Amino acid sequence: MRIVDIIEKKRDGGELTTEEIRFFVEGYTNGSIPDYQASSLLMAIYFKDMNDRERADLTMAMVESGDQIDLSKIEGIKVDKHSTGGVGDTTTLVLGPLVAAVGVPVAKMSGRGLGHTGGTIDKLEAIEGFHVELTTEQFIEQVNDIKLAVIGQTGNLTPADKKLYALRDVTATVSSIPLIASSIMSKKIAAGADAIVLDVKTGEGAFMKTVEDAKNLAHAMVQIGNNVGRNTMAIISDMSQPLGFAIGNALEVKEAIDTLRGEGPEDLTELCLTLGSQMVVLGGHAKTIEEAREQLLEVIKNGSALEIFKQFIEGQGGNPAVVDDTSLLPQAQYTFEVPAKEDGFVSFIEADEVGTAAMILGAGRATKESTIDLAVGLMLRKKVGDKVTKGESLVTIYANQEDVSSVIDKIYSHIKISKEAPQAPKLIEAIITE
Amino acid sequence: MRIVDIIEKKRDGGELTTEEIRFFVEGYTNGSIPDYQASSLLMAIYFKDMNDRERADLTMAMVESGDQIDLSKIEGIKVDKHSTGGVGDTTTLVLGPLVAAVGVPVAKMSGRGLGHTGGTIDKLEAIEGFHVELTTEQFIEQVNDIKLAVIGQTGNLTPADKKLYALRDVTATVSSIPLIASSIMSKKIAAGADAIVLDVKTGEGAFMKTVEDAKNLAHAMVQIGNNVGRNTMAIISDMSQPLGFAIGNALEVKEAIDTLRGEGPEDLTELCLTLGSQMVVLGGHAKTIEEAREQLLEVIKNGSALEIFKQFIEGQGGNPAVVDDTSLLPQAQYTFEVPAKEDGFVSFIEADEVGTAAMILGAGRATKESTIDLAVGLMLRKKVGDKVTKGESLVTIYANQEDVSSVIDKIYSHIKISKEAPQAPKLIEAIITE
Repeated sequence: MRIVDIIEKKRDGGELTTEEIRFFVEGYTNGSIPDYQASSLLMAIYFKDMNDRERADLTMAMVESGDQIDLSKIEGIKVDKHSTGGVGDTTTLVLGPLVAAVGVPVAKMSGRGLGHTGGTIDKLEAIEGFHVELTTEQFIEQVNDIKLAVIGQTGNLTPADKKLYALRDVTATVSSIPLIASSIMSKKIAAGADAIVLDVKTGEGAFMKTVEDAKNLAHAMVQIGNNVGRNTMAIISDMSQPLGFAIGNALEVKEAIDTLRGEGPEDLTELCLTLGSQMVVLGGHAKTIEEAREQLLEVIKNGSALEIFKQFIEGQGGNPAVVDDTSLLPQAQYTFEVPAKEDGFVSFIEADEVGTAAMILGAGRATKESTIDLAVGLMLRKKVGDKVTKGESLVTIYANQEDVSSVIDKIYSHIKISKEAPQAPKLIEAIITE
Repeated sequence: MRIVDIIEKKRDGGELTTEEIRFFVEGYTNGSIPDYQASSLLMAIYFKDMNDRERADLTMAMVESGDQIDLSKIEGIKVDKHSTGGVGDTTTLVLGPLVAAVGVPVAKMSGRGLGHTGGTIDKLEAIEGFHVELTTEQFIEQVNDIKLAVIGQTGNLTPADKKLYALRDVTATVSSIPLIASSIMSKKIAAGADAIVLDVKTGEGAFMKTVEDAKNLAHAMVQIGNNVGRNTMAIISDMSQPLGFAIGNALEVKEAIDTLRGEGPEDLTELCLTLGSQMVVLGGHAKTIEEAREQLLEVIKNGSALEIFKQFIEGQGGNPAVVDDTSLLPQAQYTFEVPAKEDGFVSFIEADEVGTAAMILGAGRATKESTIDLAVGLMLRKKVGDKVTKGESLVTIYANQEDVSSVIDKIYSHIKISKEAPQAPKLIEAIITE
């Protein structure tokens, strides 16, 4: 088998065999196939796509390129959730305790990450003492015990994906549905997921700018999951404006606690109930989405979701008192309000730019070497469609610096006020189950 | 300027600017742009093509990536000829003396090469004493003196093309019209051509299998030439069967001498008159193709073409007596006839395979390290359309080995005899002037 023949076959629109896909992924991972042939094949895939079988084969070849987490000692169906990323996305912090309280085991491997705010681990580290350095035994024991644990990246998962992703990034082959879908799915499968729920974001703040693109990606991932024996569902959710109110690490932990108490932002709550229902169904704890939703509402109402969150914090060395007293979270030294300059309705909050404003304050990492300030960030006081009067605060800035003029400028530039009431964006654009 | 943005632009069907194309070619040549980004851009060009302006810019950027031969001290318009390669193609040996005799200066840089038989230099070295190691001064002086000289590759011409070609070869991006056309044209221009005549081969033995593909390539090259100030014409000629009768180095030298004497194979003679007429017109020695053709017929008839060939051989250290006594050329030890097994008409001579039969005898190089046996090869005794009776020879094998059974088998497998007279292939499929 020669890689140049495989490139030529795909270039001419051919269907690659399972063996050809394995040959490529194995060869590229072990270095016998050089970058320049891989990038050429990636560009051919960009133009000629892959069918469902090829996508499933590519995914599994990447899964098998490295270590795979064995979660078989955890009782029940392990359902993982993945979001394609956005601004102010606190869903993981809420969903974990929420579905765990219904009995779905959540054995989450999570990361830090670059961007507007930290990753799930960064956010959790806003809780004093919390750490993710569990041994595999401790991790499994905690999930079996309270149904919820989070550890950092462990082992050498999907090295093929890591290497391919780095190559795609510099060869203009990132935005290819089969490549994005197989990359995401391979990581979830290697991390031990039996079933997967996907939250594909759409809109200004998301990678997929249009609903149609988001649907294509969601269908692709659901197909892959189902073709490789992992039940998979997806939703398409709005990221034209930030989710919830909080953008910042400690601020989002507080928002997650509020949401688990039933007092969270409407959109974040609804999104967590939607995704959580799918997780409960895939986890085998409810027959229908409606039944699952009832169970989730109940564990919020009866406090058991919040109770699980406390046990989870305690299990991983954190101070559970934070749940009842969020003033124990890191507090910023200064707050500033950003008052509306006119009467009207909030018509647009550009998620990406507002996220960048939070990053400028120190809430996120611009590079791997940046350090995060867990206390700082933004709290939106208004969302798209809200009425606002001149002088009313649009955003509260939490900062550890006295001069936030550039952040204020950015906020004013990217929050629009109109005279007419705008159409509020639809939170859940679609539910994709096949 | 970032190469990833250039790749993305071409991937999305955009038109690259002159500066972007230069940035790519310069960066790739000096190593600041790595292979994996170049291969990705090449595949994007494969799919999205380049317009006339981009093709001209790519060509000139490759020309400027290395040395350029300065032929300004040679009087007159230097017209170069390029053939896209085939089997038994002796045109260069004939055309040089032919157009030189009319007064067109031929300052030819030539190569050795892989394939069925050697390159022009290998063929010329079948003449005792002939060498191509001239200094630039000697080279220019000889062209000014007798209008014809041939030297080997000199200087570092089009390093960008060399590097890109090697990359294309292993990334399935060879067969792209803008890439093929700019590669060929850049080499001719860097070698100092003021005007260029192209012989684009089509058919089984050629790179371009169909007339349509050959026309596309020819148009592309003619456009490039005219857009960068080098008058360019092309013809599309048949390579479904080998050209002429001889396939082998010394055999082709003999055939060239016969042709210059007016006793050559009909197809080779016609092709040389057609290409030569274009060269004479582009060289400014005739106003029309018809006028040029008359001049060429005259220099064959009056012996001056053959006389130039003698002077040329003498000028480069060879023994000119070979022209009057071709038995001075290397002679093979054995000859074998390949008799027809049935009565009928020759309906097909698969050029590529018959060429390979000659290579097996030692007439060509399979790898750069192979040595050529200048004496061996094949002489076709019949061409497509010829009547043949059982027992009549189809081919004479000239060999320095006693066992040629595998060569005979190959010949029988790839020369077909039919009961009905076939349509003889058209030698000149088209003349492309714009």
